[in-house]
Amino acid sequence: MIMTILKNVRPMGATATDLYIADGKFADSADGDTIDCGGRILIPGLVEAHTHLDKSLLGLPWYRNEVGPRLIDKITNEREVKVSLGLDPQVQSERQAIQSMAYGTTQIRSHVDVDTHHGLAGIEGVMATREKLKGYVDIEIVAFPQSSMMPRPGTVELMDEALALGADIVGGIDPCGIERDPKGHLDAVFRLAEKHGKPIDIHLHERDAMGGFSMEEIIARTIAHGMQGKVTISHAFCLGAPDRDYVAGLQEQLAENRIHIATTAPASAPAPRVKELAELGILTCGGNDGIRDTWGPYGNGDMLERAMFIGLRNNLRRDDEVELALDICTYGGAKVMETEGYGLEIGCHADCVLVEGETLAEAVALRAPRKMVMKAGKIVAQDGKAVIKAP
Amino acid sequence: MIMTILKNVRPMGATATDLYIADGKFADSADGDTIDCGGRILIPGLVEAHTHLDKSLLGLPWYRNEVGPRLIDKITNEREVKVSLGLDPQVQSERQAIQSMAYGTTQIRSHVDVDTHHGLAGIEGVMATREKLKGYVDIEIVAFPQSSMMPRPGTVELMDEALALGADIVGGIDPCGIERDPKGHLDAVFRLAEKHGKPIDIHLHERDAMGGFSMEEIIARTIAHGMQGKVTISHAFCLGAPDRDYVAGLQEQLAENRIHIATTAPASAPAPRVKELAELGILTCGGNDGIRDTWGPYGNGDMLERAMFIGLRNNLRRDDEVELALDICTYGGAKVMETEGYGLEIGCHADCVLVEGETLAEAVALRAPRKMVMKAGKIVAQDGKAVIKAP
Repeated sequence: MIMTILKNVRPMGATATDLYIADGKFADSADGDTIDCGGRILIPGLVEAHTHLDKSLLGLPWYRNEVGPRLIDKITNEREVKVSLGLDPQVQSERQAIQSMAYGTTQIRSHVDVDTHHGLAGIEGVMATREKLKGYVDIEIVAFPQSSMMPRPGTVELMDEALALGADIVGGIDPCGIERDPKGHLDAVFRLAEKHGKPIDIHLHERDAMGGFSMEEIIARTIAHGMQGKVTISHAFCLGAPDRDYVAGLQEQLAENRIHIATTAPASAPAPRVKELAELGILTCGGNDGIRDTWGPYGNGDMLERAMFIGLRNNLRRDDEVELALDICTYGGAKVMETEGYGLEIGCHADCVLVEGETLAEAVALRAPRKMVMKAGKIVAQDGKAVIKAP
Repeated sequence: MIMTILKNVRPMGATATDLYIADGKFADSADGDTIDCGGRILIPGLVEAHTHLDKSLLGLPWYRNEVGPRLIDKITNEREVKVSLGLDPQVQSERQAIQSMAYGTTQIRSHVDVDTHHGLAGIEGVMATREKLKGYVDIEIVAFPQSSMMPRPGTVELMDEALALGADIVGGIDPCGIERDPKGHLDAVFRLAEKHGKPIDIHLHERDAMGGFSMEEIIARTIAHGMQGKVTISHAFCLGAPDRDYVAGLQEQLAENRIHIATTAPASAPAPRVKELAELGILTCGGNDGIRDTWGPYGNGDMLERAMFIGLRNNLRRDDEVELALDICTYGGAKVMETEGYGLEIGCHADCVLVEGETLAEAVALRAPRKMVMKAGKIVAQDGKAVIKAP
């Protein structure tokens, strides 16, 4: 049994103390190697709760983006460019997952494309990476009909196969804007969830009343299927709509039915207001979305940086507010993913990150290279570098 | 005469070539030391065109922010906290300027507080830093009535003194929202500009119609005083208003009268649309605004990061669009500041930055530590570290 003592460490910014790790978990005592943490803050592993591991372009030559302005332009372009670039979902997902790990992420929820063009290649690739990185970073796979399900016959069947093969979660996408058939799409999504006994995580970029309509349809089916606590809505731009009374009505229903929100806090789109969600008890997680892909050049996988983006987008300036942004990128994600034993308490898995900064807010503002990252008590990254090499 | 050869360098991402520096300027030939640039991209020095050097808290113990939500809460809090923290504007401005330099900034426009509480302490402090850092980074000083001018008797006189002492530019602030006297405030600002023969840079956070009203009053006085090309409006949140027809009318007048816009591209406020401004030929510059101060914990002085923020806020994804964001943080700032000899052409000052990345867009997306920063042909930072130490 490997045992470790973390000396002079400040859990969540508290007074310096010693922590003990035995058999991959925090314990009340341990012998073994001592790691001097130099009075640094320890936080539980960062949680990347919304990304697309299968299609990052990390490690490839620069992709010159000349894509059109509409959502559908980006979807169509990507489906085709994947072929011309010869994108290997296994290699790409491994590259991104290892980079995320170096930034302190210990668990990832990845949406993975399922379409009639590429079949289950994405799912198989990310499943292979999940196996390969076992013990380094946990990966949860959402079968994601990026190119739409209803207008492309054969996609529902592929989704079904993906879930049988090992995808953990049923994905979905704009029931009106992309699918053009909200009833057909959402019925199919919930049917798949029921058949496989798996949760749901739906992309919803639709804005204002259209997004609200789709959201109400999701809520209605969550109730009908008794799926309270098992449904996440990603993006949920409609919750950033200016009509706050209308939004309040939606949020009340989300809270009642324990439907979760995943946000990337986009600077150029309406976004859910995380303080309102927190006050209503709606679980909120954060994600980096696509990292350097055919959609756009930005992103690096750093969830401390994402906490900063959440802070900037929501105008979180006070320390307690910045701590909320960090909470979304740690505990929020773990709760949405129903991770057992997450945290720094005795008995929890020793998934944790040693960060720079005097306070939690400073850790977010600084985003300095992570001093150390542990997965189940094993060091997986040090001084910003992963202990394993990306392909 | 110091001469240098930059070998294997890609100016603005072009094919690799050699560049020559003689007597602080790019030249068509030179002997002297050779610096191998390893095929990296060279850009002209980054321009920080809107910040507040006098009041960053860099280098101080963490300041726990518990400030209220209104603009006036932040202004009042800051005026008082400056005293309790014993903030020294000289030391703080030197700290921030050196950090900016390490990130590749070669010239800074800083608004500096002038108020009846602190008098000209800020101006004197930043002027001392400007002297101290001569040859490392250029600093332009805006006399800035942060705490308002009209409601606080004695402030106009202090502004007058600041401009006589050495401030380069007349500042101003929300003529309605803060000053509560748009006519009085703007008349005073333009009178000071006329008296001292200096340009104007006004903070305008006011939104929608109120901001539009103040903007029209600024435009009217720009015309009346013949100050076309000499007035900058910082923030200009009203240009991000949803009523695009109304905004188009404002923008037309800005273009006609060569009034410039400085943007920080805030994620949580309406912001000028930089593509529209560029199409209309309105000069636009970028700034980091306050860096880690009593207003908020974020910021590090990196203008490549600011280019990314401009990209994210304006949904700039295509390579040509990301290049626009970078242009705002380089040439845009230099044009607004009327910097002579800015650029990489022969005869220009050798103020330049060697950045990582295959393309300009990648340089922005990566924001890797700057390989080398030069001011007038002298190396002032290397591998992300300034050659001089901050106090």
